[in-house]
Amino acid sequence: MGSLNLPTEQWAQVVEKVGGPATYKRIPVQQPGPDEVLVNVKYSGVCHTDLHAMMGDWPLDTKPLPLVGGHEGAGVVVARGSLVTDIELGDLAGIKWLNGSCLSCSYCQNSDESLCKKALLSGYTVDGTFQEYAIAKAAHVARIPKGTNLEAVAPILCAGITVYKGIKESLVRPGQTIAIVGAGGGLGSIAIQYAKAMGIHAIAIDAGDEKRDLCLKLGATTFIDFTKSKDIVADVKAATPDGEGPYGALLVAVQEKPFQQATQYLRSKGVLVCIGLPANANLSAPVFDTVVRMINIKGSYVGNRADTTEALDFFARGLINVPYKSIGLSQLQNVYDLMHEAKIAGRYVVDTSK
Amino acid sequence: MGSLNLPTEQWAQVVEKVGGPATYKRIPVQQPGPDEVLVNVKYSGVCHTDLHAMMGDWPLDTKPLPLVGGHEGAGVVVARGSLVTDIELGDLAGIKWLNGSCLSCSYCQNSDESLCKKALLSGYTVDGTFQEYAIAKAAHVARIPKGTNLEAVAPILCAGITVYKGIKESLVRPGQTIAIVGAGGGLGSIAIQYAKAMGIHAIAIDAGDEKRDLCLKLGATTFIDFTKSKDIVADVKAATPDGEGPYGALLVAVQEKPFQQATQYLRSKGVLVCIGLPANANLSAPVFDTVVRMINIKGSYVGNRADTTEALDFFARGLINVPYKSIGLSQLQNVYDLMHEAKIAGRYVVDTSK
Amino acid sequence: MGSLNLPTEQWAQVVEKVGGPATYKRIPVQQPGPDEVLVNVKYSGVCHTDLHAMMGDWPLDTKPLPLVGGHEGAGVVVARGSLVTDIELGDLAGIKWLNGSCLSCSYCQNSDESLCKKALLSGYTVDGTFQEYAIAKAAHVARIPKGTNLEAVAPILCAGITVYKGIKESLVRPGQTIAIVGAGGGLGSIAIQYAKAMGIHAIAIDAGDEKRDLCLKLGATTFIDFTKSKDIVADVKAATPDGEGPYGALLVAVQEKPFQQATQYLRSKGVLVCIGLPANANLSAPVFDTVVRMINIKGSYVGNRADTTEALDFFARGLINVPYKSIGLSQLQNVYDLMHEAKIAGRYVVDTSK
Amino acid sequence: MGSLNLPTEQWAQVVEKVGGPATYKRIPVQQPGPDEVLVNVKYSGVCHTDLHAMMGDWPLDTKPLPLVGGHEGAGVVVARGSLVTDIELGDLAGIKWLNGSCLSCSYCQNSDESLCKKALLSGYTVDGTFQEYAIAKAAHVARIPKGTNLEAVAPILCAGITVYKGIKESLVRPGQTIAIVGAGGGLGSIAIQYAKAMGIHAIAIDAGDEKRDLCLKLGATTFIDFTKSKDIVADVKAATPDGEGPYGALLVAVQEKPFQQATQYLRSKGVLVCIGLPANANLSAPVFDTVVRMINIKGSYVGNRADTTEALDFFARGLINVPYKSIGLSQLQNVYDLMHEAKIAGRYVVDTSK
Repeated sequence: MGSLNLPTEQWAQVVEKVGGPATYKRIPVQQPGPDEVLVNVKYSGVCHTDLHAMMGDWPLDTKPLPLVGGHEGAGVVVARGSLVTDIELGDLAGIKWLNGSCLSCSYCQNSDESLCKKALLSGYTVDGTFQEYAIAKAAHVARIPKGTNLEAVAPILCAGITVYKGIKESLVRPGQTIAIVGAGGGLGSIAIQYAKAMGIHAIAIDAGDEKRDLCLKLGATTFIDFTKSKDIVADVKAATPDGEGPYGALLVAVQEKPFQQATQYLRSKGVLVCIGLPANANLSAPVFDTVVRMINIKGSYVGNRADTTEALDFFARGLINVPYKSIGLSQLQNVYDLMHEAKIAGRYVVDTSK
Repeated sequence: MGSLNLPTEQWAQVVEKVGGPATYKRIPVQQPGPDEVLVNVKYSGVCHTDLHAMMGDWPLDTKPLPLVGGHEGAGVVVARGSLVTDIELGDLAGIKWLNGSCLSCSYCQNSDESLCKKALLSGYTVDGTFQEYAIAKAAHVARIPKGTNLEAVAPILCAGITVYKGIKESLVRPGQTIAIVGAGGGLGSIAIQYAKAMGIHAIAIDAGDEKRDLCLKLGATTFIDFTKSKDIVADVKAATPDGEGPYGALLVAVQEKPFQQATQYLRSKGVLVCIGLPANANLSAPVFDTVVRMINIKGSYVGNRADTTEALDFFARGLINVPYKSIGLSQLQNVYDLMHEAKIAGRYVVDTSK
Repeated sequence: MGSLNLPTEQWAQVVEKVGGPATYKRIPVQQPGPDEVLVNVKYSGVCHTDLHAMMGDWPLDTKPLPLVGGHEGAGVVVARGSLVTDIELGDLAGIKWLNGSCLSCSYCQNSDESLCKKALLSGYTVDGTFQEYAIAKAAHVARIPKGTNLEAVAPILCAGITVYKGIKESLVRPGQTIAIVGAGGGLGSIAIQYAKAMGIHAIAIDAGDEKRDLCLKLGATTFIDFTKSKDIVADVKAATPDGEGPYGALLVAVQEKPFQQATQYLRSKGVLVCIGLPANANLSAPVFDTVVRMINIKGSYVGNRADTTEALDFFARGLINVPYKSIGLSQLQNVYDLMHEAKIAGRYVVDTSK
Repeated sequence: MGSLNLPTEQWAQVVEKVGGPATYKRIPVQQPGPDEVLVNVKYSGVCHTDLHAMMGDWPLDTKPLPLVGGHEGAGVVVARGSLVTDIELGDLAGIKWLNGSCLSCSYCQNSDESLCKKALLSGYTVDGTFQEYAIAKAAHVARIPKGTNLEAVAPILCAGITVYKGIKESLVRPGQTIAIVGAGGGLGSIAIQYAKAMGIHAIAIDAGDEKRDLCLKLGATTFIDFTKSKDIVADVKAATPDGEGPYGALLVAVQEKPFQQATQYLRSKGVLVCIGLPANANLSAPVFDTVVRMINIKGSYVGNRADTTEALDFFARGLINVPYKSIGLSQLQNVYDLMHEAKIAGRYVVDTSK
């Protein structure tokens, strides 16, 4: 195993009981196994999933507590196991939701490693990036190009990859149109930018003039305010060249009403992609229309490693710009408090050195 | 226009008021337009859709009455319009649900003519095949190879094409497994045969020993009796080589419970294809599982012309064998009566000469 | 049949014997058949194929002379046959290389109408657009959005569609890289713009500073001067993020050396798309490298109707800008003379009113 | 690391100098690394590649000598490294050409591990299966279902996977037709069986009545004897339902004349798949026809891990039957001698216990 000079202790945010809070404290630095790397996390984005992990309110168990959350960590490789040869000490790397997978099952064999039954999930089933030194499987760690701004890239590692994957799953091709529902929010505003960079025309659906201005500035072709539209289905269809509706729709937070509207304004054979994980929600659609118009409804989870590489390349070319606020790792609980109160606008990134 | 010697009058079954009955009577023989052919229908399959057309209980209007139903007609071309050059008088031809389409809209341009907004539907928006001489657009009429048994091929023209299309939409590849729900029924028993001919392993799901024997004889790899299984989800998964469940599921009559079971036993990223048009049914699935496992739900309607050619080729090679009962056209109302009473087992074919 | 007031005679350029020249003269205006439209051609692009048609030096027969050439005609619909309902008199329309096809064969059924054995080719097997009034099959005529500049759009109808199709055939996705060989020429400079609009990064390969400036201005990510590069294969690979080479290469005029270089600098599993029709050229590649690296070599001909709609939509959104010189139809022979002398830079468009 | 009781020495066939011969001798048993398994090879197929490795006549370097050849080894896992958790001691496993790959590069991320630049090749760049105990990366070793006949399955591990992959690359779908050139040989006769099991109709092309009988017995739809046919192109086309020619062609040993014929009898947009690695051969095709008919030429190398799983599943279901002759490992040089003299008919399998 190779490594740089490493401390034996570090700062971390640790969840010690279900419901939290997260405690800022000193814990030992771990050593990577033969197929792992140790990353000195510089910045980590904060995601609603981190709050779910602390609250234990998702239908998926975390590792036994204590737990270090976080799965959007950008930093520098400082140690690597004996089998690791394709990433160097000093290289920039990202730790994402998918910390590792078996690389052998039929999902992994087919590049669907996020569906692996033995997937390790950062900040959920293994300790994550709300600490100064975090471990991940070398084969899964994101390679970040030299010179990248680590603070700005952090949110790409989950939010960016997720919406990019969703757009790919929609099968919408360059020159075609996609509707983005919730376009003015955190995921939606990134989705508009990926769509544009992919040559896809975005119809942004959200509420309010502030979001209108944001969406149009980010590159949406059309904005539809669902609080003002008298007929959303008609308005969305009218925003496509032939009036037949968009080829795809991306729902970044799946709720009943927008879901059903989307099945209606999609053109026949259109693809509705559901992202986002409200714990108890259901999706529902009438059989007759779904069959006669050959509507396609897809769940989309996180991207695989190839999606990660691609999503990062769009970022590296300057095509994606995620607004964020920076705060010290020691202040993480404040972010959770704001999330609880639904007062978050935009993405928070924690600086592990503070 | 070219034509053989034609009578001016013919026998037909005519629906004269909503709710029926169909009346067996003499009506005039029509002339085809420049881009149409006239087919001397020899045999026509009878489908539940014909009953819906008569009863007017679907959310889709028929042509103004009177209406001649029928959309599985096999016969001989006896006249053709001036623009028709690629089909000869005397050629065998099939009239199917899709009587014609605009051939110009974006759906038609992309070989999705069944989604054309101007599609003409045999026995529904235009007169169909429950008459001796029926008209269809030359570009849409199915080419039936010389020497084909016209009585046996009739049900392929709707039932066969529909299940073949559904299997294609499932994206299941040769060597993979598909679950067929309702495998022992009319559509299901044809689906098993197409799956087998396509190198796909079928898990047949239905009830009763008679259907078990039928399904296994037709080529299903496994039969699961949903009235006897204690855990259908577990049993279906166990019937696949790696225990992860089938790559696709075909629901030939979409009902709530089998639909929800299918979303559970499908392997992650599996495709659930819905066929069949219960008028008021809804499909419903939990968002969390659909997203995390990337489940894909698709409506599948009828096939396009290429699907028709392909489905007929499988039949012509002797790989598909649809059991049917034969009856005179004059007795059509009897078939409807049996349908009303849900006493139909297998397909009825009417002989227009009787 | 509907029509506006039409003259009985018109100006046209007519090839009366093999080898030409084209004669500018008055000929009768034709009437469209039941499934055809008559287009008042306003502008028509001039393509090398028109010269080949006149010279008779291609391995494909033209219609018996006299022949009116031209297949990039933009104009207004002034008459339509009795079966035509989805295009109105006064609508803008384009006549392209594919004047019509049977719409019934297996190619047409699968949206590959350019491969139809009965395809009608404008200005080659049927009279084309070097006249004031030209006929085309209604189902094939390109729908041009209202308000489009007909002079500027003319070259899209062949050159634009052809390169757009080629890029689609390359299977290169947004965010990936394509090499365009001959990027500074007529087809290449349009290809750069389509690639950019599709989110694809273009490596432009051509010679000279003038072409370098043009390619970079049009949106190429990199320019490689094949007269200056000491190792084109190495330079092309170095211009991709991981150094593995581009996912696709577009050869707009297939010649031996660039073809073989492309098989070398493509990444493994890359796609080489050949466009352009030098009459006697061969393509040749070593079996070992082609197999071990799974290289894919594809011929790409003209686009189908869906490609046409899409290519025009990119133009309508202002993303494609084709430089052209305008000249009266009466001066067509001058353009041919320049072509003979290889003195053409950029596209010529003839104005049928002059 | 876990292991069963293992000997320290074993029998092996070792190439000690370029050009051979292989020497049957005792050598040490190696220990697997943390991510590797040790397989007690019971049987190993013998492939022409093994001869190339010994002769050093391929444009690809082997590991420094001495070299143990062999890459179709079927046996039992007897030791595994500390990281290996998804394969148990006692499980059946296959060692194939692709012994390992980096699992991290863009090819590996996209399931194209056979294109990995760091791929380890059994019996070529690492020691192979002509010994009693051979090592392979755990993530790459083929999982062989319990109860499989290890002698019969050995040739599937290279020959089977290779032709199965080639058929997949052809994109030919169930119900369509593929031409197999060299259908009566070792690879071809396996290809016929995979095609049939995939619902694809095979036109077998080869010479002589013995091969005719074999091909038809294995399931080919048609046999064409190239020594007797007066017009192969016409005969192949005539063997397809619409006379347009097959959708794909599989060339199991790429030679000039059959290659050029295939480009002619393929239907437009057909796919020509080249397998086999004659060291200095070139493929060559006329540009005009390739472009106008949109012919697609593809090299196909070995399958990936998913292809391996699939190819083995077809075998396990009893659909593939490879004729072979069995011989002791000690007699390997005799097989090479027969290969030199081109006297091999069918596959040889060596038994490592003799």
